[in-house]
Amino acid sequence: MSNTDTASAAESHQRVFLPPRPSAEVISALLAELEPLLGERITTATGVREQHGHDESWHHPAAPDAVCFPHSTEEVSAVVKACARLNVPVIPYGVGTSIEGQVIAEHGGLCVDLSAMNQIIKVRPEDMDATVQPGVTRNQLNTDLRATGLFFSVDPGADASMGGMASTRASGTNTVRYGTIRENVLSLTVVMPDGRIVRTGSRARKSAAGYDLTHLMIGAEGTLGIITELTVKLHGLPEAISSATVAFEDVAGAVNTVIASIQYGIPMARIELLDALSMRAVNQFSKLDYAEKPTLFLEFHGTHAGVREQAEALAELCGEFGGSDFAWATQEEDRQKLWQARHDAAYAARQLRPGMEFLATDICVPISKLAECIEATEQDVQESGLVAPLLGHVGDGNFHLVVVIDRNSDDEITNLKAFNARLVQRALQAGGTCTGEHGIGMGKRGYMADEHGEALSVMRAIKMALDPQGIMNPGKMV
Amino acid sequence: MSNTDTASAAESHQRVFLPPRPSAEVISALLAELEPLLGERITTATGVREQHGHDESWHHPAAPDAVCFPHSTEEVSAVVKACARLNVPVIPYGVGTSIEGQVIAEHGGLCVDLSAMNQIIKVRPEDMDATVQPGVTRNQLNTDLRATGLFFSVDPGADASMGGMASTRASGTNTVRYGTIRENVLSLTVVMPDGRIVRTGSRARKSAAGYDLTHLMIGAEGTLGIITELTVKLHGLPEAISSATVAFEDVAGAVNTVIASIQYGIPMARIELLDALSMRAVNQFSKLDYAEKPTLFLEFHGTHAGVREQAEALAELCGEFGGSDFAWATQEEDRQKLWQARHDAAYAARQLRPGMEFLATDICVPISKLAECIEATEQDVQESGLVAPLLGHVGDGNFHLVVVIDRNSDDEITNLKAFNARLVQRALQAGGTCTGEHGIGMGKRGYMADEHGEALSVMRAIKMALDPQGIMNPGKMV
Repeated sequence: MSNTDTASAAESHQRVFLPPRPSAEVISALLAELEPLLGERITTATGVREQHGHDESWHHPAAPDAVCFPHSTEEVSAVVKACARLNVPVIPYGVGTSIEGQVIAEHGGLCVDLSAMNQIIKVRPEDMDATVQPGVTRNQLNTDLRATGLFFSVDPGADASMGGMASTRASGTNTVRYGTIRENVLSLTVVMPDGRIVRTGSRARKSAAGYDLTHLMIGAEGTLGIITELTVKLHGLPEAISSATVAFEDVAGAVNTVIASIQYGIPMARIELLDALSMRAVNQFSKLDYAEKPTLFLEFHGTHAGVREQAEALAELCGEFGGSDFAWATQEEDRQKLWQARHDAAYAARQLRPGMEFLATDICVPISKLAECIEATEQDVQESGLVAPLLGHVGDGNFHLVVVIDRNSDDEITNLKAFNARLVQRALQAGGTCTGEHGIGMGKRGYMADEHGEALSVMRAIKMALDPQGIMNPGKMV
Repeated sequence: MSNTDTASAAESHQRVFLPPRPSAEVISALLAELEPLLGERITTATGVREQHGHDESWHHPAAPDAVCFPHSTEEVSAVVKACARLNVPVIPYGVGTSIEGQVIAEHGGLCVDLSAMNQIIKVRPEDMDATVQPGVTRNQLNTDLRATGLFFSVDPGADASMGGMASTRASGTNTVRYGTIRENVLSLTVVMPDGRIVRTGSRARKSAAGYDLTHLMIGAEGTLGIITELTVKLHGLPEAISSATVAFEDVAGAVNTVIASIQYGIPMARIELLDALSMRAVNQFSKLDYAEKPTLFLEFHGTHAGVREQAEALAELCGEFGGSDFAWATQEEDRQKLWQARHDAAYAARQLRPGMEFLATDICVPISKLAECIEATEQDVQESGLVAPLLGHVGDGNFHLVVVIDRNSDDEITNLKAFNARLVQRALQAGGTCTGEHGIGMGKRGYMADEHGEALSVMRAIKMALDPQGIMNPGKMV
C-alpha cells in the first residue's frame, strides 16, 4: 500500500526534508571513506543488497546502495558521520523481521546491519536487568538467562532483535501482564543523526531528571538515531505456569470473557483469541485437532496457589459466557506445543490459500469497544469476501486479521485497501490506534494525520530538529 | 541552591533562549489583551502574585507579574498565544506542592493557575481509565472513584494536582507495584508554546504509531507546553489489603530484606524504609510509640489467600535479616494511621529542629547498590554533623534525607550543598539518578550535565524546536 494511496486530506502541508537519492559518485566516496575502517564489512554486492531490501511484509522491496556491518557503537558513529557529511540515507537493520516495511530502502542509501553487534554485555540478576547490543535476539537473551531464573518478557512471535523490537515498539502475547518493550527498557545508547553518541536514562528504576529521551527513541523506527545498546528489565520466572485453551460458540462470548477477566483483575500472563477460521488453519498447519470454534489461549503465572486461584476465577467467567472444552497444559512440553501453534497461526493462515501473500492488520482499541469492533469487522470481512482469519492479543484490545490475498489481482488489492481503511477508521472512532504493535513503516504512513492530527506536526518538528538533513530512515514514520 | 553554585564544568556551552523579563508596558498590553476573555480571572494583585511565587520547597520565592485562572483548554490556548506574541514567560501552576521550585517565576511572566480546571470529565470503569482536567487532585479523583471499585494509584504524599504530577513525573509509596505516573498516563491534551492544541496518544493500552509525545510531556515541568487534560489508568481495588511495620537492628538488615523481596518477586504494594531518627521524629510528631529502630512499612494487595502468601514469604525474609516486632494492621483505620504517620514523616523531621527549613534529597539507584549507597550516606551524614533523617521508597531504590537546616547560617548552607553534591555523585557513580521523583526545577539544574552528558544537548534541541522563544517555564529543567 503506497503512501499516497491512503494519504489523508487533513495531513499537514508541513513536510520533513527528504535527502536526494545518492548518486554512484557519492556511494563511491562513502565507500572510500569507510573501507579503511570496515574493510570487507561494507559492501555493494548485489546479493547482500537485495537481501537487505525487504522485511517479512508484502511491501515492495527496495535495495540499499550499500550494506555495512559495524561491530561497535563507535563504528556506527563513524558510519553515520560519514553519511551525514555525504548526505546519504541511513537505514538501520536488525534481523529483518519487521512487517510494515521499516527496513526497506525506498530512497537508497546505506543499510546499517547490526546483527554482528550481538553481545550480551552484562546480566545483573541482582538488579533484574541486562545490557545488550542491538543485534541480540530475544531467544538468544532468554537462552543466556536460563541459569538465572529470570527472563526477558517481550515476545512478538518472531525471534526479533532487541534493537529492532525497541525501534518498532514491539509487544506480543504476554503484554497484558508484563507490558510492551516500552515498559521494559531502562536506558539506551543512541547514535544521533550527526554521529554523536548519547546515553538516555539510567539504570535507576525511576527518574524525574530531564526529558524522556528513552521513550522518544523507542518506536521511532530509526528515524531519530540508531540504538546501539539497550538496558532492559528482566522478570523472575514464575514458580508455576499453567496454560489452557477454551472454545466458545461465538466470538462475542470469548471477547466478553476477556473483558470481564480484565475488569475482575485476574492477572493473566497471556489471553489470546483465535477465531474459527484461524483454528481451522492452525489444525491444518500444525496437524492438531482443536475444535474449530472461537478459542481463547490462556496462560497463568504465579505461585502454585496463585495460579490455581486465577484459573478457577477464569473458568467461572468462561462458564458464564458459554466457554467449554477446557484443555489444560501444565507440562512444559504441552505448553510449548500450544504456544507454538499460536505463534504459527499467521503462517497457518497463509496456507488457506497456498502461494498467496498476506497482510496483517493491527488495530488496538479500548477494551470496552473490543466486542463491537470485532463484530463489525467480522461482518465487514464477510461482506468483502476476504479470506481473513482473526487472531490477537485481546487482553490489550489489539487484534490482527491475516488477510490472505493474491498480490497480482488488482481487484483483491483494491478490496483489501478499502477494507483496511475502514478498519482503521473504526479503531480511531473507538479511541484507538491504527497500529498496536507492528508500527508505521511504509504501511501506515497514510493514517498518521488521521490518528494524530496536529500532534503530527509536533513529531515533524522534533524530526527536523534532531535530523535536519532527513537522512535517518527517510520516508518512514513522519 | 542556585544553578551556578553547582553548575558542572562539563555542561554544554549550548544554551536555550531565555526571554527578557517583561516590562510593565508589556504586562499592561497582556492584560489589555486577555481581560476581555478572562475578566477578573487575570490579576496583578500583590497577594495573589506572592501566593503563586513559591512552592513547598525552600527555594527563594519569585512572584510572577500576573496570575490567570483559565477554565478550558481553549482559554489556555488563547493565553499562551497572547504570551507568545508578547514574548512573556508562562509558568503553569497546579496546587503548588512541588518541592524543587518548579513553579517559581524567576524570570517574571504570567502564572497560569489551573486549579479551576478541576472537572473529572469521564470515568470509564469498563476500560479502567478516567479523563480529567489538570487541576483535579489525586484525593478528589479517588473520592469520586469510590463507588467504582477502582483507584488512581500514584501517591506522592501531598494532595497534588494531576497536571502537576504528570509534569514532574511524580511517583510515591506504591510505585513498586503500580508504577510512577509515567506508567499510568494513556494520553494528554497539551497546549504547545505557540498556543496550538495537540492530543498525544490514544485510549488504546498500547500503540506503535508515531513518536511518544505523551512521555516527552510527562516530566517536562511545563517547559514544552501546558497539560490541559489527562487520560489516566485506574486499578481495581484489591480484595484484601494488609499493612505492617517491622523493626530491624540496623539499616543494612532492612535494606537487604527489601533487596531480597524484590528478587524473590514478592509483589508488594508498598515497601518503605524509615531510619531510627525518622522513627523518633514520627513518634514525637504523631504521638506514637514505635520502636526507634530502622523500620520497614509494608503493604500487601491481592486476594485474601494471595496477601497471606505474600506476608508469610516476607516474614520469612525479615527473620533472615534480623527483623522483629512485626505489627500488623489489617483494619482500615489502623492502616490509615500507619500510612498517615509515614506520610507525615517529612513534617515530623522538621520538628527535630523547630523553626528550621528542610531540604529533601532524592537520589535513586539500582537496587543492588542501595545498601552500600545508604551506608556511605549515613556515614557522610554523621561526619557532616547534619540532622538528616532518612526515609524512602526503597523498593524502587529511591530514598530521601530530610536535611533540617538553618537557612540563615551560611556555614550550614555550605555544608548542605557539599553534602548534596557528594550524594548525587554517589548516585551517578552507582548508575542512578539525581532525582527519583522530585524533578529538576531550580534545585537540580546543576546536575543535569553530569547525569546526562551529551544527551542534555539533545534535550535542548527539542526545547528549542518546540519553544523557540523559550517562554515556557524559562530557566527550568534544561
